[in-house]
Amino acid sequence: MRIGNLPGIRRLPMYLSILRRFQREGQAAVSSLDIAGAAGVVVSVVRKDIEMTGASGKTGVGFATEQLIADIEGFLGWSNPLGAFLAGAGHLGSALLGYDELHRHGLDIIAAFDVDPNKIGIRVHNTEVLPMHKMGDLARRMHIVTGIITVPSHSAQQVADLMVEAGITRIWSFAATILAVPAGVTVQREDLSAGLAELLVRSGARDILHPLPRK
Amino acid sequence: MRIGNLPGIRRLPMYLSILRRFQREGQAAVSSLDIAGAAGVVVSVVRKDIEMTGASGKTGVGFATEQLIADIEGFLGWSNPLGAFLAGAGHLGSALLGYDELHRHGLDIIAAFDVDPNKIGIRVHNTEVLPMHKMGDLARRMHIVTGIITVPSHSAQQVADLMVEAGITRIWSFAATILAVPAGVTVQREDLSAGLAELLVRSGARDILHPLPRK
Repeated sequence: MRIGNLPGIRRLPMYLSILRRFQREGQAAVSSLDIAGAAGVVVSVVRKDIEMTGASGKTGVGFATEQLIADIEGFLGWSNPLGAFLAGAGHLGSALLGYDELHRHGLDIIAAFDVDPNKIGIRVHNTEVLPMHKMGDLARRMHIVTGIITVPSHSAQQVADLMVEAGITRIWSFAATILAVPAGVTVQREDLSAGLAELLVRSGARDILHPLPRK
Repeated sequence: MRIGNLPGIRRLPMYLSILRRFQREGQAAVSSLDIAGAAGVVVSVVRKDIEMTGASGKTGVGFATEQLIADIEGFLGWSNPLGAFLAGAGHLGSALLGYDELHRHGLDIIAAFDVDPNKIGIRVHNTEVLPMHKMGDLARRMHIVTGIITVPSHSAQQVADLMVEAGITRIWSFAATILAVPAGVTVQREDLSAGLAELLVRSGARDILHPLPRK
């Protein structure tokens, strides 16, 4: 499967939040340069990323802010959120359930699942927490193919197996584990420790910025 | 400032979690190929990433698992966690405070801060929540230079300003906003919507995988 410009796709949500701020501030037209400045990205890259979405601007005028927002959202398919199940209603799961932006970012969490009897039956940010063993049957009946894993790392593989068994083909995982899934299932791993390693190195907290030792 | 291999640095935490699993399973020696297989990364890249840490293996034998873990941890400086302040003790902040792995990943959250009177004074996962207005003074007195932002996006810039004023030079931000900070301050932005955009595109949920339309 050919995926053109993955880093560019990852930058689009950032452009959207910049554009929404411009819009709130009453700026009806924007240039690639405006976006580049706010995003800290070079302007040629911004131009290429926007070109990918099919949006068109006018030389010397730029883009109509509102239209560009609509074009990027349309490109990402965010105008039509996908239903998803979330497994693990702990702190991180609750944070995601309460993350209002998620819906605007193309995902609609329909139900949450947990094994903890104290959590089952409660509502977290208006989403009901159901027993984990009901997930498979419900996913099949509701044709849910997107799952979010926010259980502790040691049970993440087991939950992923349940999801795959239920026909889920798209997993957004916050577990530190590497999940084994069959071909045809896509796993997107959000790795907080990777971001942390990057921060510590970029900020010079770690003494590893110098030319690397040769063996 | 020259940073050699940022994508490689981001992969190291993943290698560590793989190596720890090998260690738990009693595997005393590992090869680059073992790691590559478990990580889903090509072996030449794994070799290059490990070389960066200065760890040395033996041809035909590989690496001693325990020593390689120690070498990578030493390279990342994770054996010596940095003290950090966290601003925003909501769901996401609480999730980070309860994330046991954080300490092992080089960060030690010393105190949390919030503006909500209902949160101030309570302990979240054993960390005290203090009033936000005390953050600056405490950071200066305790020489804390690392801050974590988990407040809602609309107040993130204000909190970043407070942090910068207090001498914090390293900010790990979970807000959707782009933060404006002076030169010399490093911001690492964890952007959940970027990961989500990538998942939806990689899994083919969005019809944007085909050759891009030309204008």
